[in-house]
Amino acid sequence: MTTTEARTDHDYKQIEVQEFRLTEEPFYLPVADEVDLFEIAYEEQIPVLLKGPTGCGKTRFVEYMSWRLHQHLGDETQGVPLITVACHEDLSASDLVGRYLLEGDETVWIDGPITRSVKAGAICYLDEIVEARKDTTVLIHPLTDYRRLLPLDKRGELLEAAEGFLLVLSYNPGYQSALKDLKHSTRQRFVAIEFNYPPRDQEAEIIRRESNCSADDAMELAKLGEKVRNLKEHGLAEGVSTRLLVYAGRLISRGIAPRRACQTAVVWGLTDEFEVQRSIEEVVTSIFPE
Amino acid sequence: MTTTEARTDHDYKQIEVQEFRLTEEPFYLPVADEVDLFEIAYEEQIPVLLKGPTGCGKTRFVEYMSWRLHQHLGDETQGVPLITVACHEDLSASDLVGRYLLEGDETVWIDGPITRSVKAGAICYLDEIVEARKDTTVLIHPLTDYRRLLPLDKRGELLEAAEGFLLVLSYNPGYQSALKDLKHSTRQRFVAIEFNYPPRDQEAEIIRRESNCSADDAMELAKLGEKVRNLKEHGLAEGVSTRLLVYAGRLISRGIAPRRACQTAVVWGLTDEFEVQRSIEEVVTSIFPE
Amino acid sequence: MTTTEARTDHDYKQIEVQEFRLTEEPFYLPVADEVDLFEIAYEEQIPVLLKGPTGCGKTRFVEYMSWRLHQHLGDETQGVPLITVACHEDLSASDLVGRYLLEGDETVWIDGPITRSVKAGAICYLDEIVEARKDTTVLIHPLTDYRRLLPLDKRGELLEAAEGFLLVLSYNPGYQSALKDLKHSTRQRFVAIEFNYPPRDQEAEIIRRESNCSADDAMELAKLGEKVRNLKEHGLAEGVSTRLLVYAGRLISRGIAPRRACQTAVVWGLTDEFEVQRSIEEVVTSIFPE
Amino acid sequence: MTTTEARTDHDYKQIEVQEFRLTEEPFYLPVADEVDLFEIAYEEQIPVLLKGPTGCGKTRFVEYMSWRLHQHLGDETQGVPLITVACHEDLSASDLVGRYLLEGDETVWIDGPITRSVKAGAICYLDEIVEARKDTTVLIHPLTDYRRLLPLDKRGELLEAAEGFLLVLSYNPGYQSALKDLKHSTRQRFVAIEFNYPPRDQEAEIIRRESNCSADDAMELAKLGEKVRNLKEHGLAEGVSTRLLVYAGRLISRGIAPRRACQTAVVWGLTDEFEVQRSIEEVVTSIFPE
Amino acid sequence: MTTTEARTDHDYKQIEVQEFRLTEEPFYLPVADEVDLFEIAYEEQIPVLLKGPTGCGKTRFVEYMSWRLHQHLGDETQGVPLITVACHEDLSASDLVGRYLLEGDETVWIDGPITRSVKAGAICYLDEIVEARKDTTVLIHPLTDYRRLLPLDKRGELLEAAEGFLLVLSYNPGYQSALKDLKHSTRQRFVAIEFNYPPRDQEAEIIRRESNCSADDAMELAKLGEKVRNLKEHGLAEGVSTRLLVYAGRLISRGIAPRRACQTAVVWGLTDEFEVQRSIEEVVTSIFPE
Amino acid sequence: MTTTEARTDHDYKQIEVQEFRLTEEPFYLPVADEVDLFEIAYEEQIPVLLKGPTGCGKTRFVEYMSWRLHQHLGDETQGVPLITVACHEDLSASDLVGRYLLEGDETVWIDGPITRSVKAGAICYLDEIVEARKDTTVLIHPLTDYRRLLPLDKRGELLEAAEGFLLVLSYNPGYQSALKDLKHSTRQRFVAIEFNYPPRDQEAEIIRRESNCSADDAMELAKLGEKVRNLKEHGLAEGVSTRLLVYAGRLISRGIAPRRACQTAVVWGLTDEFEVQRSIEEVVTSIFPE
Repeated sequence: MTTTEARTDHDYKQIEVQEFRLTEEPFYLPVADEVDLFEIAYEEQIPVLLKGPTGCGKTRFVEYMSWRLHQHLGDETQGVPLITVACHEDLSASDLVGRYLLEGDETVWIDGPITRSVKAGAICYLDEIVEARKDTTVLIHPLTDYRRLLPLDKRGELLEAAEGFLLVLSYNPGYQSALKDLKHSTRQRFVAIEFNYPPRDQEAEIIRRESNCSADDAMELAKLGEKVRNLKEHGLAEGVSTRLLVYAGRLISRGIAPRRACQTAVVWGLTDEFEVQRSIEEVVTSIFPE
Repeated sequence: MTTTEARTDHDYKQIEVQEFRLTEEPFYLPVADEVDLFEIAYEEQIPVLLKGPTGCGKTRFVEYMSWRLHQHLGDETQGVPLITVACHEDLSASDLVGRYLLEGDETVWIDGPITRSVKAGAICYLDEIVEARKDTTVLIHPLTDYRRLLPLDKRGELLEAAEGFLLVLSYNPGYQSALKDLKHSTRQRFVAIEFNYPPRDQEAEIIRRESNCSADDAMELAKLGEKVRNLKEHGLAEGVSTRLLVYAGRLISRGIAPRRACQTAVVWGLTDEFEVQRSIEEVVTSIFPE
Repeated sequence: MTTTEARTDHDYKQIEVQEFRLTEEPFYLPVADEVDLFEIAYEEQIPVLLKGPTGCGKTRFVEYMSWRLHQHLGDETQGVPLITVACHEDLSASDLVGRYLLEGDETVWIDGPITRSVKAGAICYLDEIVEARKDTTVLIHPLTDYRRLLPLDKRGELLEAAEGFLLVLSYNPGYQSALKDLKHSTRQRFVAIEFNYPPRDQEAEIIRRESNCSADDAMELAKLGEKVRNLKEHGLAEGVSTRLLVYAGRLISRGIAPRRACQTAVVWGLTDEFEVQRSIEEVVTSIFPE
Repeated sequence: MTTTEARTDHDYKQIEVQEFRLTEEPFYLPVADEVDLFEIAYEEQIPVLLKGPTGCGKTRFVEYMSWRLHQHLGDETQGVPLITVACHEDLSASDLVGRYLLEGDETVWIDGPITRSVKAGAICYLDEIVEARKDTTVLIHPLTDYRRLLPLDKRGELLEAAEGFLLVLSYNPGYQSALKDLKHSTRQRFVAIEFNYPPRDQEAEIIRRESNCSADDAMELAKLGEKVRNLKEHGLAEGVSTRLLVYAGRLISRGIAPRRACQTAVVWGLTDEFEVQRSIEEVVTSIFPE
Repeated sequence: MTTTEARTDHDYKQIEVQEFRLTEEPFYLPVADEVDLFEIAYEEQIPVLLKGPTGCGKTRFVEYMSWRLHQHLGDETQGVPLITVACHEDLSASDLVGRYLLEGDETVWIDGPITRSVKAGAICYLDEIVEARKDTTVLIHPLTDYRRLLPLDKRGELLEAAEGFLLVLSYNPGYQSALKDLKHSTRQRFVAIEFNYPPRDQEAEIIRRESNCSADDAMELAKLGEKVRNLKEHGLAEGVSTRLLVYAGRLISRGIAPRRACQTAVVWGLTDEFEVQRSIEEVVTSIFPE
Repeated sequence: MTTTEARTDHDYKQIEVQEFRLTEEPFYLPVADEVDLFEIAYEEQIPVLLKGPTGCGKTRFVEYMSWRLHQHLGDETQGVPLITVACHEDLSASDLVGRYLLEGDETVWIDGPITRSVKAGAICYLDEIVEARKDTTVLIHPLTDYRRLLPLDKRGELLEAAEGFLLVLSYNPGYQSALKDLKHSTRQRFVAIEFNYPPRDQEAEIIRRESNCSADDAMELAKLGEKVRNLKEHGLAEGVSTRLLVYAGRLISRGIAPRRACQTAVVWGLTDEFEVQRSIEEVVTSIFPE
């Protein structure tokens, strides 16, 4: 547990590219036929767009599919490799494709995550794609054409995607502003699957499993989730994610009183507005009355 | 299927410039005399501007022409090389022309796609040109003069375009805002061909061929396309592309129920607005009633 | 005390990474159960968001927790290492993760503060996180997932956080504008603890300890703090911090008259508006009448 | 016709600066005394500003003058060298003056187009100057003073322009916005010549010569030009350039029906607005009635 | 007096860091107890914020204090070193902290002014701090904490400030806009001293000493200063600085008629508005009637 | 007269810093006592601000003073060196001070124009200073203090200006907008001299001398200048400069008819507005009636 890092001549050579395969089955409860749809799209090599609010399970679903898909491919290793990129306003094409770095007397090329995906036949998951800079378009478009090409302009190369490669984007329709919308020339290259929060029983099961709280507490927290999401028209920009309900469950299972746990994990986290906090706390009190 | 990339002293030398010739005839059904017009423009060395909505077939048309044109030139090899660039907000002149990179003790020049086109006598297709940064103008203008010159300022050179070179731009008039318009001093250097979605029978044929669905389903999907495009005045920014109809056909041919296939491939992909989704779904239900 | 810096061949090698462990117990008086909540969150590896106004003690609290936590971990050394970053508008992901620097013929990698935290199992405290550039999101999100990963894109690596690592953010809800808000996809990854200024007796005790002024003066200054914070609706953007009250106490203990000390440390520091200065001075005069 | 580029150690040395002298007389029909005015300005070393709409012949005029002027100078070689720069929003002073590039162990200086002009005694033609970045001002001003100096700040040098050097700017007054105007401190350093489209007979002659169409078709196209330019108050931002009329002539001479040729070369190229297209098409129909 | 600079292999090594100690007592006339306040703050290591209008003597005061303070420290050398930085919109943290520069085969670190101050135990005076870029915050905050740390992120180091170090900021409250305000989280780290122009007699004494004009002229100029500052509500954005009055005195002592001297040094310098110039000239005429 | 530039190993070493001394007396006719004022300011080392409209003779005046001043300094060489910088929106402090450049294995420092001025004891003339970026402030301020220092931050040096150094700024008050004003903390460091166009007889004399036209034509052109400047309230943003009148005189002396010469040199150059052009042409016709 020391922060000292040895800096030797070998330091720079030690780069190893990760194999991002999940080694354990991620916990995922299907809601409808989304697993079938994704499997067919994957086999048909049709790019997929996942739409839905914050924390409703899109990322977990992709992880689950990447773990599950290997059986259908007859692949001995576990699952399809999954490479995830959290997009942001400064994410540029070079960050995704790769760049040259100077090493001593030589210049070496470092593949970016999308290039690694294309070479490895991985699922490349671009989370919140509308946040990325627009030059990423240059990469997405030819990869979604029937020829599935990735231009590496700086190398003067064109890569053809390996068999198992699939491009998956996610975005949150509630977020989009005029400035940050997915252009039609981009979005009309994908089949889309819309997600929403899991139904109450299913969410309770998730909370119980991930927080080790009692089944009763989990059910109450799932109810809380439902009710808070209905507060949206009372000034709440976004519903509560399953993740925050799990946090509340973990604090409860460690002995924090439920109302205090919900205040910390749900109320204060969701909003800074005093009035909205009050509305949520009333919901909390109605569910955990004592 | 491993992501490991060997990094050796030879790595950087292995750059090979692609020969972007299509080796198979792309499927393209002509609508009017656009093939003749393009052939004459190509022979007369008049630059061409393709206008039309998202997914109406502009890119496929250029690919088809690049494959078809070699017969008219008496060239033994297959077609004219085609170099495509998907333009975006950060695309600069250097990205198109090329740049110097440092390699060990030396600096090497890497040709960009427009320079490669000029040298190879290729068709250079700048897709969605209005998205590019304005310094790209400096390249387009002298290439469309009668002298067809490409200035490589950083090398102090002027290149004269090889015989077969042609500059082709595309843009989507429905997209343009005041900020992102093609300047008159640019657009008045091109002949323009306007495209629209293919007529119903022709689109049904395309859907059937590319999705392996039944001729009946293909015809229903083509009808769906027509009707959805008429919803434009009901808040739909852009009509549905043929590509999305093909996706729907492929899902249907894999056993997904038509209404579910259309929801995934057409409804959710086209729009995030609940009301507009409802309108499209009504159209879907009217065509696939069961 | 000379400014001359020897520049030798060894200069660049002398980099030593600091061990940011506190060696003395920072003075902190708990207000509620915030110490318990933080301890449980730390053990449960749930990221923590501290909310509250300027100078109410958030930073001191984190320092205190980093000093206190080692006992619970059975660690022989003192406390958990704490790495603090004051965020600002130009802070980018590279500043946090690290970058390559050229050294002679070689390129060496310099870990940024978040990478050092992840390796060392430290508490990483990002103060005023909303000030940072948005590309920092790419780092925060996977570190708050159950897998606790830090992608080092430039090295093609994924780091798994060491056991003791915890991400702690702070922000001041009074500051936030629409432009600089914490996105929901970020904030729903944290439990939140809201802070406020300490109650009067407790603040007096802090002032006395840190300024060496008399207990009476300390109590008067704490009263002053309370009253000034109530002036908020009279045009004062932000209440007075405990720190400024401590400054006033130190000037008083050095012989400056209380009203002059308060003018210098509180009135002139808080605001430039003449009218608001007058209101605060009236409060000062009512407390230090002579 | 291969795109492969050999990259050898000699690659970077092969830079040759072009001698941009025109070897054939460009076709130019004078309208008034502009040839005399330009000749006197050239001999008097008074910088020249060419004003006029898109495609009215400014560039052709400068080319013609550069070809014609050598006779008056008693120079044995053909004409005065001409160096043309199409200005754009990202064009900076360094692009015009030159910059240092790293070559192996050394840094070499690459002259930009304005420096080459100054050294060669060339006409330096900055087309659409208001598009360039404002740091270009630093170059234009001292070159238009009586001392005709070019500061190469990065080299700590001042160059005195060679005898035959002349600075010529063009701009389109119809384009200028408040943001992109030529500053008075700049424009008051030039004599100005205003251009407009050539009169009908003259334009017909140009169209006939450059398109190989019949004299009748050429005259009809010239009439079309005149009438379309009168549509300006009907929403057409800019008149039709002679160049587009030449394109129409070339399509006609290749067998395309005149109305179709005009649709492609004139209607679709000029505007995206359906109503304005209709107005132009009515003009086309009135001229080519069958 | 030649501009030629020898460029030898030793050029780069000849860097000498200045010892910014004042060797002569700067002329400063105290107005109130500001000297005492500053001395106590310096001994208590409380950072100081100087507020006041342009040219009222803030910079001179800091220079005076840096010269005066050495006696109190029992230091044999003259005064405390003073390092002054005039802040501006492009001043970044790297400018203040330092950066790596490439020298031949090695990279050397060059300390910035704040690092030199921290090492030397100097007074670091950031003049017009609100003009600087916001990333400077990252430096100011930890230096004003009780631990007085300067993070050198690029070196992975933390510096503890040497004993005599003090951070002093200045800013002009009349200037601040909403965009360029000192944030509360910054300003609540300082004691503040407000400055204004010196009273008439004192200003006359300053003018006489610094311009060598007669005592009478100096007194008249001081009156002029007073009256012009009262014109503020007549459209004058800022009062006249003592410096401009000294300029007028120097022109007068060189034989320029007082009204002409005031026109040049005061009227034309203060404003470009004709009406406001007239008002000031009336004041000048009333004081220098002949 | 060839554009080929030899690129040898010696290329980069051949930098010679110019000695910008004028070798011939520039033609300048004094209007008032501006020569005396400037001489005293120069001897008193008081920085000078020249204010006035475009083309009224500010630059010529500085050139004249730099030529004239050597007699007063008892210097054997001709005049004081003059270094002129035309400021623009991208001009930064580094452009003025200097920067490091890489040369083979070494880094060499290249002085910028202000550093060369400070070392050479030159007059440094920053033309249109408000156009420059704000980081230039950091240079101007300490150079106008009584200590006359130039901080070379990148070298860790402070330069004291050589004896003959003087900072001279110019700016055009008619141009300034709120965004581009000289800050009070800057302008209150200068004495200011306001310029205007020369009176009619004097301007006629200038036109005659510089254009070789007849005294009569020169007088008519001077009258034209006067009248055009009175058109300012009719939509003309800026009056006509003496320079444009000289151009007209030169065209007339080469045989161009006066009305045509004025159209080219004055009317078309001054404005693009048709109505304003008409007003000026009426003035031209009234003066040159035939």
